[in-house]
This record gives sequence, C-alpha cells and structure tokens, in this order.
Amino acid sequence: MKKGVMRPGHVQIRVLDMDEALKHYVELLGLIEVDRDDQGRVYLKGWTEVDKFSVVLREADEAGMDFMGFKCLDESVLDNLHEGLKAFGCAVDEIPEGELKDCGRRLRFTAPSGHDFELYATKQQTGKWGVGNHNPEAWPRGLQGIKATRFDHCLLYGTDLDKTLDLFRDVLGFDLAEQVVTPDGKRVAQFLTASMKAHDVAFIDHPEPGKFHHASFFLETWEDVLRAADLISMTDTSIDIGPTRHGLTHGKTIYFFDPSGNRTEVFCGGDYHYPDHEPVTWDADKLGKAIFYHDRQLNERFLTALT
Amino acid sequence: MKKGVMRPGHVQIRVLDMDEALKHYVELLGLIEVDRDDQGRVYLKGWTEVDKFSVVLREADEAGMDFMGFKCLDESVLDNLHEGLKAFGCAVDEIPEGELKDCGRRLRFTAPSGHDFELYATKQQTGKWGVGNHNPEAWPRGLQGIKATRFDHCLLYGTDLDKTLDLFRDVLGFDLAEQVVTPDGKRVAQFLTASMKAHDVAFIDHPEPGKFHHASFFLETWEDVLRAADLISMTDTSIDIGPTRHGLTHGKTIYFFDPSGNRTEVFCGGDYHYPDHEPVTWDADKLGKAIFYHDRQLNERFLTALT
Amino acid sequence: MKKGVMRPGHVQIRVLDMDEALKHYVELLGLIEVDRDDQGRVYLKGWTEVDKFSVVLREADEAGMDFMGFKCLDESVLDNLHEGLKAFGCAVDEIPEGELKDCGRRLRFTAPSGHDFELYATKQQTGKWGVGNHNPEAWPRGLQGIKATRFDHCLLYGTDLDKTLDLFRDVLGFDLAEQVVTPDGKRVAQFLTASMKAHDVAFIDHPEPGKFHHASFFLETWEDVLRAADLISMTDTSIDIGPTRHGLTHGKTIYFFDPSGNRTEVFCGGDYHYPDHEPVTWDADKLGKAIFYHDRQLNERFLTALT
Amino acid sequence: MKKGVMRPGHVQIRVLDMDEALKHYVELLGLIEVDRDDQGRVYLKGWTEVDKFSVVLREADEAGMDFMGFKCLDESVLDNLHEGLKAFGCAVDEIPEGELKDCGRRLRFTAPSGHDFELYATKQQTGKWGVGNHNPEAWPRGLQGIKATRFDHCLLYGTDLDKTLDLFRDVLGFDLAEQVVTPDGKRVAQFLTASMKAHDVAFIDHPEPGKFHHASFFLETWEDVLRAADLISMTDTSIDIGPTRHGLTHGKTIYFFDPSGNRTEVFCGGDYHYPDHEPVTWDADKLGKAIFYHDRQLNERFLTALT
Repeated sequence: MKKGVMRPGHVQIRVLDMDEALKHYVELLGLIEVDRDDQGRVYLKGWTEVDKFSVVLREADEAGMDFMGFKCLDESVLDNLHEGLKAFGCAVDEIPEGELKDCGRRLRFTAPSGHDFELYATKQQTGKWGVGNHNPEAWPRGLQGIKATRFDHCLLYGTDLDKTLDLFRDVLGFDLAEQVVTPDGKRVAQFLTASMKAHDVAFIDHPEPGKFHHASFFLETWEDVLRAADLISMTDTSIDIGPTRHGLTHGKTIYFFDPSGNRTEVFCGGDYHYPDHEPVTWDADKLGKAIFYHDRQLNERFLTALT
Repeated sequence: MKKGVMRPGHVQIRVLDMDEALKHYVELLGLIEVDRDDQGRVYLKGWTEVDKFSVVLREADEAGMDFMGFKCLDESVLDNLHEGLKAFGCAVDEIPEGELKDCGRRLRFTAPSGHDFELYATKQQTGKWGVGNHNPEAWPRGLQGIKATRFDHCLLYGTDLDKTLDLFRDVLGFDLAEQVVTPDGKRVAQFLTASMKAHDVAFIDHPEPGKFHHASFFLETWEDVLRAADLISMTDTSIDIGPTRHGLTHGKTIYFFDPSGNRTEVFCGGDYHYPDHEPVTWDADKLGKAIFYHDRQLNERFLTALT
Repeated sequence: MKKGVMRPGHVQIRVLDMDEALKHYVELLGLIEVDRDDQGRVYLKGWTEVDKFSVVLREADEAGMDFMGFKCLDESVLDNLHEGLKAFGCAVDEIPEGELKDCGRRLRFTAPSGHDFELYATKQQTGKWGVGNHNPEAWPRGLQGIKATRFDHCLLYGTDLDKTLDLFRDVLGFDLAEQVVTPDGKRVAQFLTASMKAHDVAFIDHPEPGKFHHASFFLETWEDVLRAADLISMTDTSIDIGPTRHGLTHGKTIYFFDPSGNRTEVFCGGDYHYPDHEPVTWDADKLGKAIFYHDRQLNERFLTALT
Repeated sequence: MKKGVMRPGHVQIRVLDMDEALKHYVELLGLIEVDRDDQGRVYLKGWTEVDKFSVVLREADEAGMDFMGFKCLDESVLDNLHEGLKAFGCAVDEIPEGELKDCGRRLRFTAPSGHDFELYATKQQTGKWGVGNHNPEAWPRGLQGIKATRFDHCLLYGTDLDKTLDLFRDVLGFDLAEQVVTPDGKRVAQFLTASMKAHDVAFIDHPEPGKFHHASFFLETWEDVLRAADLISMTDTSIDIGPTRHGLTHGKTIYFFDPSGNRTEVFCGGDYHYPDHEPVTWDADKLGKAIFYHDRQLNERFLTALT
C-alpha cells in the first residue's frame, strides 16, 4: 500500500440474463445480494467483506467486465492519485457519488491494457455478513453454495503490459509479484499486488485490448475447493478446469463459467508478497506448469477471454 | 466376507525397468521395499499393512498385471474355495508355499474376464511399518513421497462381466457394490467388494480379455491427494487426470503412470458397503460423470488399458 | 462378519426432554428425523445410512442408553445366534416385529458388562437420504449442523470384560481390535469389531455394570471435526474435549453433551481392522495417551458415565 | 503499511540449552538453521521467508524474549521513524550493522508495555528455502517436523496498553485490528497489524512489564495443525492447548512449550485486516471464548508468561 491503494473493491460484470446470473453468483457461488438500483443492477458481496458490496451485475447484450475498482485509504489519496494518473497521461472521468449506490466518487480511467479501472475511497460499511465485529462467531450460518468469502482479484487479457505495469507500479503503488517472461525478455504475464496477496490484479499479454479472463473469489480451504467442484457438478454448471493448483502464486483453484460465459474462479491458499520481495519469475516455456501446476499444459480454453 | 475371502492381498505388476519402477513405487508412491527374491522380483508394502508385502514388481518386456491375490481367513477356507472354483468350472493351479517369499500356497485361476487371480491364506505378518501394534503412534516418521497407506484394489478391463460376477459373488462371496448399466440392461462396469470398502476389485467391459487399467492405493485425506498431485508435478511424472472425484464410489482421486506405462491411482474417502445394501447403479449415459464426477466426461486416455 | 453380524444398526437413548433433545440430535448433530411412534419415541438416521433409522430417542426421567442393536445378514443368522446366546447362558427376549416401527423381530439379551443388546435382521430400507442409489450425487444438499453421516459405535462402561469378550467373539463373531492391558495382564478396555471398522462397540472396565459413556457418529474429514467444534461453540453446547485425536484407533474426535447429559462423539478417520490382524495393545500406564493422544492425560470427566 | 513498517522480521529468544532448543525449533518446529555467530547465537528461518533469518536463539540463564524486530521498507523510512520515536519520548539505541549477521543497522527502543523492539530495513535476502523464485515448485522437499512456514507474530504481556497502542499506531503506522474491552472501557488485549494479517504483534494487559507469552509460526492448513499435534505427542513435547480455534482472529492453533519453557504457537487461517476496517471487539466477559473458541474458558496456564 505504497500510494494508498488498499484492495480490489468491486468489479462490474455484464450478464445476459439477470435471473440466471443470480442463480450462479448467489445460489451457487454464495455471494449475498445486498441491493439493486434503478438501472436494474444487482449488488453482491462475500460474507467476510466489510464494505456494502464488491460485485455489481449489469444485464447487457454481451458478457464481460465493465470495470474493476480499487478502494483507497481516504479521499485525499484519491486527489493525489488523480494528479498522478493525469501526469501519466490517462484521461480520468470523475463519476459522482451515488452512481453506484452508497459508494463515493470514483475516478475512472483506461489502462494501456485496454481495461477500465476505478479508484474510490468511500463506500458504506455494513460489516461482515452474519457475524459483525462484536464477539464475532467463526463464520455465519445460512450461507449458500460455495460460500465465497470475498472478491479477490481479476485476471485480464490485453495489450501493452509494460506500460500497464508502469501505471500500476509507479502511479498506483502496486508491486510486481509474479511474472512470466520469454527467452528474449518479454513479460507475457504480470501479477500485481497492493498488499500481501499474491495478486490483486493480473494481466496476460493478448493482441486485443480490454479482454476479461475471470473474476476470482477466495475460499478458506482445499476442502472448500472440493465442495465447489461437487456443487459445480451437481448444478450441471460448465466447468473449465480443476480442482488443481496454479504454479504462479501456488493457489489451489477451480475455474467454471457463469451462464453468460464469464469465467469464475474460486481458490484458496497461495503465496504472500511483501514490497521487498523480488518478483517470482516463470519462464515462458513453462507456461503450462505456471498456469496449471498439475497438468503442466494449458487446456484449449485457457486462451479464450471475453470482450 | 461371506465365504472367507478378506481382502486384496497382493498384486504382481510387470515393469520394463526395475530401477525406474522403484523410483516410482518407492520414492514417489511411498511404498516400502521389504524384500527381493532370486527371480529378481521386488516386494513392497504400504505402511498400514500388517502382512509382509502387497505389491510385487517383476521386470518383463511388457507392462501390465500378472495376477491379483486375495487373502482368505484360513487354510480351510482355501480348501472350500478350491472346491467351489472347480465346481464353477475354473481350472485351478496350486502354487506351492514359498514361490512368493514368506507366502503360503496360492490357488491360481483365470476369471471369465481373462485375468489371473489367486487365493491364499498365509503370509508372514511383519506388522504396520514403523508403528507396530503396541502403543502405536498415529503414523510413522520417515515415509517417502506420497506415503501410500495400502494397496486397495485394481480396476480391470475384460470380457464376460456377467460370468465374472457370478464367480466372484457366488463362489467367492463378494457383493456387487456399484454398477453401470446400459438402457438395455447390460452391465458395463461392476465394482465388487468382500468387505466394507466400495470396491476390492472392479471390472469394465472390454472386447479384449485380461487387460489392466490400474492398481490403486489408499490415502487418508484430500490434502494427501493434493500432495500427491504436487509430487507428481515436481517429479515430472506423467499424469492422467486429477485431483478429482469419482461418481462411482465418490472417492477423491488422481491417476498417473509409472515409467512402464502402468497406471497408478491414489485416492481417499469413498462410500462404504454392507452386504444388505442394494448396488448403486449408474446409467451408462452418465458414464462420464460416473467416472470423473467434476469434468463429467471421460478423457481420451480412460479407455486405454494395458495387456 | 464371521457369524453374520454386520454392524451397529441402532441405539435407543433416553432423553429428559424431547424437544431439547431434537435440537441437539437434529439441528446440531444433523441427524434426520424419519418417524415417531405412539410411545412418543422419535426415530433418526444419518444421511448415508440405507436403513430407515439408527437412533431412537425416548423421553425418560433419567438419561442413558436403553439398548444397542446389531443388524445381522438374514433371519436364519438370527436363529443361529439365538441358539448361541442360549448356549452361552444368556437369557434372550424375542421382541416382536413392529415394536420398533418398520423393524423386524429383535433378540434382546444382557451382556456380562450389564448392557442390553439386540440382534435383528430386518428393517425397512429407505436408502441414503437425499441421494439414493441411482446416479447418486456426492452428498445431499439441505443437511443441518454437523451433518453426521452415520451412527458408528458406542463406548460403554461396565463389568466383566473378559466374559463380555467371550460373548462377542465366540458367539457373535466379533474381533478384538484394540485393548488396554495392565502390567498384570488385566484387560481394562476392549474395542470390538464385526467389520473393517476399528470398533463397532467398545467397553471400559468399571465397577458398576451397564453404564453409558457415549454414542458416536462418523464424519468424513478433520475439517468436519472443526466445523463440529465451531457449531458446538456457536450453539453454546457443553463440550467435553476436542478437537483431538485418540491413541486407540487413531480417530480424530470431539466429545460434547446433549441437553440430558448424554455424551455424543463425532469423529473421522481411524485405523481399519481385518480378522487376521493381531489386536493393538496399549499399556494401562499409557491410558492417557491411548484415550487422548495429544494431551496424553485423561480429563476429569472421562471417567464419568451415565447409568 | 502506513508508515513503511512492513512486517515482523525477527525475534530473539533466550533458551537454557542450545542443543535442546535446536531439537525443538529445527527438528520439531521445522525451522531451518542458516547461520551461527561468534556469540554462539543460532539463526533460523521458515522456508517461505525471503530474508536470511527470522528467529535468533541465544543461550541464557533465563528463558524469554530479548527483542522483536520489524522490517521497514527502506533506510529512509528508518530515519523518519527514528524521529517519530524520539518525538514520542522513546530512547532509541542504534545498533550497528552486522551485530546480527547480515543484518543492517537496527533502531532499538522499549515500548510502554516494557518490551524491547527494533526497526531495521536491510537484511541479506537468501530467497525462499528450497524453491527460490524462478519456476518455483509448490513447496520444498526435505523439510522437518511441523514444517513451519514463517515467523508470524508475538503475543506479549505487559503494562500500559493505551500508550503502547499510541506508539504502534501513531508512530509506526499499525492498525488496531482486534481488542478485548472491559465493561468500563479498559482495553485488556490489543492485536496490532501493519499489513493484512490479523496481528503482527499482540499485547495483553499484565501488571508486570515486558513479559513474553509466545512466538507464533504460520502453517498452511488445519491438517498441518493436526500433524503438529501428532508430532508434539510423538516427541513427548509439553503441550499447552489445542488443536483448537481462537475467537480473536479465528485462527486455528496449537500451543506447546520449548524445553526452556518458552511457549510456541503454530496456527493457520485467521481473519484479514485492511486499514479501513473497524477493530473487532470482544467483551472481557467473553475472554474465554475470545482466546479459546471451543472450550470457551481459559486454561490455568494461559495467564503464565515468561519474564
């Protein structure tokens, strides 16, 4: 948190049919519906999240990610980062307070990778769902499905990874935690963090800008990943791969698809990062093992990402 | 144990190169080498097994299974079963005591599936490795690799499942615990047990007789299956599929290959069976889910079995 | 299963208040209520159990166990065992079909330990709850609380362990799987099994006959034991000890109390037994470690058992 | 990391006999010996730690903690914090580079709680043990015992919690993540963090200053906590309590003692914290549940801490 950016705070995902989407994100994934707005967007959160929401679903004709937002320490941080973004050459839109319900003003910009990101510092805090912060029990009863604990990160496919790293590192204070590098020194994957997590956002080099690979949600244990896999099967949900482990970050994971074709990850474990750590580097010829540690090869779907 | 057959007691596996095989079965799988004989065969066991050995490796020009042996309650059971086998129409070879080191006489016969099986009642008991049976610790220190606890069962491909079931059920006292049945009532997979385990031996219908799919070894936990997967990757061992769950028996599993191409399974959990339980039945059109519960489809390698 | 006794089939437990008891056994422990009878008894089962019920609660003025019943292979086994019991010197009451709902005739006798046991061969089979045996999912949704999978065994305190062993071994075909023995050779604890489980019933030497220590229920994993412990705390249920491991059987366990003071165990894992295995023996001066493997001492409550 | 303090970087522990201590910290706990110095101190680390060492053992006549050190982002942070400490009224000793081998200059001060702390920014980085940061495997082979992954935090007993919080929060940039408060508003326990972890250092109110409760080491899973408990039993190591869960932070834990009487904790899981999170508050009358979530009462040893 070198520049006051704390964490991934929300992601807005486009879905083709809201009712179907809610079966996925609420009944299967286990997020909690907390609100809706007059645009018809539905607001969700994982139970450990203190802020009011972290996932916003918007019905649209095409699946994908509208934007990902990072929460900052306070409003003055936001002002400083606004200057930094402008100096970097980003056009910044200031979206007024309340455009997302109970969320303060947001600074919107497009990264060189082609993705829209936001910074904000204020969101209503409703506390951990079902447990609060006064003599809290270990976990709340009444959770559904996979019981995802929090929105954790996104993996995005896009252009110009170098300049995207410059932006996230130099302007926003992220560290490069892990990377995949070709023999001639080109970075084809970069995992960035503003905290101890192995990644708060990750990018894979892709000829088209602004593509969405997955939004990821945190689970506590490898048993939870198994439960997720079982539920994916029981609900006849389209699976991508898993349960398995990643080489990059070493998280234990499963990928599956929402009814609109957006990929969802749930995972547990994984490495931690501090700002004095050298990046972990994988050679590009080990990309298969870096992504899927057990199979040691990419499945054909891995390179598929949504607009 | 309706007829005195207790459990799978040993399997003899052919390997192309003994030194390479021992890296697989001892260093990776974690079996313990307990003896060798003047034929060059190597004897192994899992640490929880009370008898001296359960796996015998034999160097040969072709991989596969020589035979699988079941331990019976006592020598008089053996005599009774000898009569039963003959009455059923099996030719029975009596292999003298000592042909396998520290093992009593064995009754060898070929099942209608085309596989060689043995019955025996006597084998030297050396106790659980590293813990014994006097104030035993929870587990021994010094185990290697995947730390397989015991030889558990074999899955075999072959012909004439109906008659094979008749033999195992009526002569040997096994139960049909699980099966896969086509719409016209043909049983294409049968999982047989002489105890509480969901399977002591399993058969899949195949046009060629006597083929070997895998030998399976028991682990304690899903964490152990993950450790196995990690070790398979670290040792660059050829993986087939997993970690995943089976639909049949619901065991949690991973398949991988020894250097000779023999498939090894390690798994944990799974259903239990008592003699009054109706068989669990899977429809053949759900075969994918029955075999690989999460992916819900067979991988291309599943139908490959060794001679 | 040397004599046709398959497994613990039911236990009838006395509770002081049925409504309170059901909160414990259904909402917390996760058994499923399947029926009631005109005596006011309530019938429960764990979700993996194929038979209609395994726990019967009876409201009474004093807590404890009325009887424990073992299911046998068939009615002819029952007749044989009737003869055996009489020859051993047991008085046997034949309780007619239907006295427990949907249960066949039961043979009731008192063991030398002072406990009432029953044998029966017929009970309505309703199948695994929520999954059945046709293309069964891995587990049913909608289970409550600790999600106990099955009634597993009882631990009983009583007199005359030697003669009790004679009865269970010689007449009923059980094996002595584990024991605790004093330096002068007196067996002060004996764990008996009719199957692969480390114990189907266990006895600890006690000056008073017929006392009840606990009924035990099986869980799948050590994570499940943690969940149980968490739920015990959340519901302010009286805990005895755990999560911990036993030395005897090496099961992973937690003990807690129902509102009437009956002790409940849930556990996972543990050793397996075959009839050719020598008993595991613990020295009496290691009793602390044999019972509670981590603390290596008995807690003050361990010796408390109900009438 | 509001002021550039990153994490607990080391702790120096006094032991009565170095050889006995190494059996505990290396063979049982699984730390790796990395160096010794001419004072006879032994340097250890957990395998995931990038810096050269995190635990320093010093032979002395009395057990306890000499000091705990926090690593800062860079040397200029150190200069700023030096000013802050002086302004707060702390006497600061500057310990020259090399006094601890391969460690830069350290700023030593005594907190109002009576404990000695240090800040430093430079230590030799030797990388994760056995895996490094180039195509790293999931974990290294050859770890011993409990396989502790890293030094995580200390729990300290001492005086003047309010002023200690002022120092850590206002000067060093820590957050108050969790606390225990009496009905009259006195904070009797405070858990402080400079990162996402629920605690980097914790204090419990005690009439005597500068007392040591435990040093804590991180494990990956609840299975690892069980393995730790098993190894504690197998090595006849004195156990305090566990496996269990804490209410505060919800970590899953076990406490045990080194041969000198220093308490060691290993734990996994636990809540995460961000700077915008309100502190979690436990009422002092729930202290038992806050500390030991399952037993809901303190054991008699909990209040015992070393000088």
